[in-house]
Amino acid sequence: MKLLKDRILRDGKSFEGGILKVDSFINHQMDPILMKSIGVEFVRRFGHLPINKIVTIEASGIAPAIMLGYLLELPVVFVKKAVPKTMENMLTASVYSFTKDKTYDICVSRDFLTADDRVVFIDDFLANGNAAIGVHELVEKAGAQVLGMGFIIEKSFQQGHLRLRELNIPIESLARVKTLGNNKVEFED
Amino acid sequence: MKLLKDRILRDGKSFEGGILKVDSFINHQMDPILMKSIGVEFVRRFGHLPINKIVTIEASGIAPAIMLGYLLELPVVFVKKAVPKTMENMLTASVYSFTKDKTYDICVSRDFLTADDRVVFIDDFLANGNAAIGVHELVEKAGAQVLGMGFIIEKSFQQGHLRLRELNIPIESLARVKTLGNNKVEFED
Repeated sequence: MKLLKDRILRDGKSFEGGILKVDSFINHQMDPILMKSIGVEFVRRFGHLPINKIVTIEASGIAPAIMLGYLLELPVVFVKKAVPKTMENMLTASVYSFTKDKTYDICVSRDFLTADDRVVFIDDFLANGNAAIGVHELVEKAGAQVLGMGFIIEKSFQQGHLRLRELNIPIESLARVKTLGNNKVEFED
Repeated sequence: MKLLKDRILRDGKSFEGGILKVDSFINHQMDPILMKSIGVEFVRRFGHLPINKIVTIEASGIAPAIMLGYLLELPVVFVKKAVPKTMENMLTASVYSFTKDKTYDICVSRDFLTADDRVVFIDDFLANGNAAIGVHELVEKAGAQVLGMGFIIEKSFQQGHLRLRELNIPIESLARVKTLGNNKVEFED
């Protein structure tokens, strides 16, 4: 997605150690017009699939997911990164975060993820794939099916894509970053 | 907002103790078409103000805020409910949560909230007003200004509206719930 890659080159900041900061337009401050264009691009990639629901994970996945859900007129469920004490009837999975160096529980209500659901999972980043694998586990526990996984940015030098490929689910990343560092970003292709 | 009130009456669930569950269309599973209509209603209420940015707080504020930002073509910043260890140059405030019965820190990067900013704050619920007051504190610390605060649902039987009124900022709630309980919801007006 050229618009996105150009924006990453212009406003993204890269650092040694594979760090890419896009917090001025994607995951802290967000550009809603770009988010809508990202939604349109996900429609192109997933709109032909027989999906009835979009699933994402809080917080940075919500903006692109809601745009995709709006364009396809489908409900959007966001998986929570903490288990609320008031929530009943939950499905949970454990996810290890490299960034935070800790394991946390993610959860979703069984009311909103059932055996009837055919979903696309949307998130901002694919790095090691742990969050995506955790959400996939929740969907399996619900008896539902993931028909596709879409990421705004993929760090293709990390293990996520390789690990998700074993699930045999179509993966679409709108910008695949090959190398990072020294204020330089290179994309795949 | 009639569409919203009708939806609350149809799909909301109320319980003794002032609990209103709207997690089938607002804050766990989300209806993106309703969220866009909510965005339009916030445009009617705030579109005439000289704002340059929308501010919200993760996670349930993000969907209505991104719709408002999209319609007004303004950036959206979401305040974080945990302080990330990788984030520098932050503003923080403490917020007490009644639901969780604990105090937590909220934060925003100084890069995305500056003395030039005139913002509207958007969130899903106004109950005791603690999150809104915490965000207002962040905005003040940045030297910025809150020109309006918009909530999807207000529990007018709680203290939030009264406390926010002391800030002398226009408050707009799209559905003001007067009483709750026994599977019955009554609105103000």
